[in-house]
Formats: sequence, C-alpha cells, structure tokens
Amino acid sequence: MSNYDYDRLIRKVPNFPKPGILFYDITLLIAHPEGFGQVQRDLDALFPVSSYDALLAVESRGFLFAAVAGFRHRKPVYLARKPGKLPNPTLKRAYTLEYGNASLEVQELDLAQGGRWLVVDDLIATGGTLEAACALLEAKGVEVAGIFSVIGLPFLGFPERLKKYNPRTLLDYHGE
Amino acid sequence: MSNYDYDRLIRKVPNFPKPGILFYDITLLIAHPEGFGQVQRDLDALFPVSSYDALLAVESRGFLFAAVAGFRHRKPVYLARKPGKLPNPTLKRAYTLEYGNASLEVQELDLAQGGRWLVVDDLIATGGTLEAACALLEAKGVEVAGIFSVIGLPFLGFPERLKKYNPRTLLDYHGE
Repeated sequence: MSNYDYDRLIRKVPNFPKPGILFYDITLLIAHPEGFGQVQRDLDALFPVSSYDALLAVESRGFLFAAVAGFRHRKPVYLARKPGKLPNPTLKRAYTLEYGNASLEVQELDLAQGGRWLVVDDLIATGGTLEAACALLEAKGVEVAGIFSVIGLPFLGFPERLKKYNPRTLLDYHGE
Repeated sequence: MSNYDYDRLIRKVPNFPKPGILFYDITLLIAHPEGFGQVQRDLDALFPVSSYDALLAVESRGFLFAAVAGFRHRKPVYLARKPGKLPNPTLKRAYTLEYGNASLEVQELDLAQGGRWLVVDDLIATGGTLEAACALLEAKGVEVAGIFSVIGLPFLGFPERLKKYNPRTLLDYHGE
C-alpha cells in the first residue's frame, strides 16, 4: 500500500449527522482525481484482482469506490441497500450502528451467483453495517473475500468485530 | 453511439416501488461487466471528454456511472443528494417526481468550483429530479454541460422539460 496522504482530502465535520458525532467526509476525496485514483491503486495492493470474483457496493458512498473497481477489473458489482430500495426479492438483515438502527438488503438473485465477493464501503466505525452485509452473503454461501474501506475508526470496535473478514482501510482515525 | 443491446440487461419490475409503477432496474447491468463497460464507451461518444470539467452524480444509482467516468477521465465527481446526507453547507431545491415529492442538495463548496458539469443519473422519467439538479448548478454559475442517463422514459415528459440541458440516454422505453 502507498504512503499517499489521504488525510488532507478527508474533511472532519463536527456534530454531523448528530450532535457529538465527528463525521469523516469523503466528498473532497472524490472531487480530487489524483486521490480518487490512488484509492484504486491501493485497493489493488490490498486485494489482488485474483482474490475476488465480484464486488458488493454498500449504499451509498460505497457505490463510488466499488463501481470503479468493478469497471477496471471487469467484475460484477452488486448492491447492498437500505430496505425498500432494491426492486427484486432480497435477503434482509437488521443491525445497530454508531447512531441508531438500520437494515440492509441484498438481492437473492445476486447472492445466487455465489463466488468470492469483496465488500466495499467508505468508512468502517463499529462494523455493524459491514457485519450485517457479510452475514447476508455467508447465509447464501457467498464467500467474503475481504472488506475494503477508505476510512477506519478502529476505536469504535470494527477490527475485533470484523476480524474474520479481513477488513482493510487506507487511513484510520483514533478519536478526538 | 453503439447499437449495444442494453435492453436485455434492464429488468422490468412491475408494481415497484408502488402499485402501478413499472420499474426499470439497472442492477443486472452493473453486474454485467461487458454492459457496464459499454455504458462508459457510449457516454464518451455522447459527451466528449473535452465538453465537461466535472461530473454531478445524482443519488444513489447515478453514483455508479458518474464515479467510473470521473475516474477514467480524471475529473472531479460531485454529489447531488437527498436532504441531510451531505455534511457541508448546501444549496437545496424541492421538486415533484413521478411518485411523490423530494428535495435535492449540492454542497456550496463544490458549486464554488464552477466550470461545466455533466449531470449523471441512471433513469430520467418526468425530469423533475434532474431539472432541480440543473437549476441548483445554474443558481451558482455552474454551466450544465449536458445530462447523461442510461434509461429514458420520454413519454413522461423529460425531453421537453430538460430540453435546454441536452439530455441524452442509451435506451428509451415508451410505456406499457
């Protein structure tokens, strides 16, 4: 992995989306072609193309990074979305996250394709969202090839919670 | 533009998200590397790289197509999102869509970059969402370089409503 300075492209926004939460914002990163391109080179360094068959893009910001990797390597891109967004029958799983509760869905006809999927999101905090995503895949016999995220907040617990899924991040923050 | 057969990669899902609505589903297209790649070649044919400076990715499925174009051409990707999702101060605009009302936001610091932006979404129906997006850009002096969408439903009125923004689609459906 490179020593690219991603930190200068991550805005830190206090009290968003709720008071007391420090939000790590990737909108400057995706507006910066050099940084956005470097994410892909580092994704490749962490997860060789031969290590996965497809990508799972986690709504919504995960779409941005997974779509590019899918395009570059000619691999299928599947979506993990909030309830009610996917038009075909889904498998659904509830989870708790840093602030509140939520559910995630993946389409059954996508899961039926099987293989090894790389799960992609922009940020991992408690790991609740991604644990739910990975559990959905495994419930249908899809192998989790790993988890890729731009940002990690390990003090919120994801390294322990997601240990068996090999979560890898490009930069970590360690609390305020 | 190619004569690629996108239609076989677009699922038609009746009564989604509401009774009486026929939903045109791009999840099979993005799971199909050949088709997903062809979208980019056709985007390039419709909008030469020199015709725009940046991309506006419209939440959420527009992210998938805009991110790839931004990566390929090393152009900034900016986001148009539902209210409350973007962490920095935004310009907001309400609109009516095929089924219900909604608002769209773009970050003020992104708009301040100026230039010619290509607006990208997966489907255009009435054109309400994209008209709101384009109006937001113009309100801050950003020029709309055009609108790109995979699917168009011209019978719902977008060609007239978005005429001045040059909306281009890869395939159109003409009602049931």
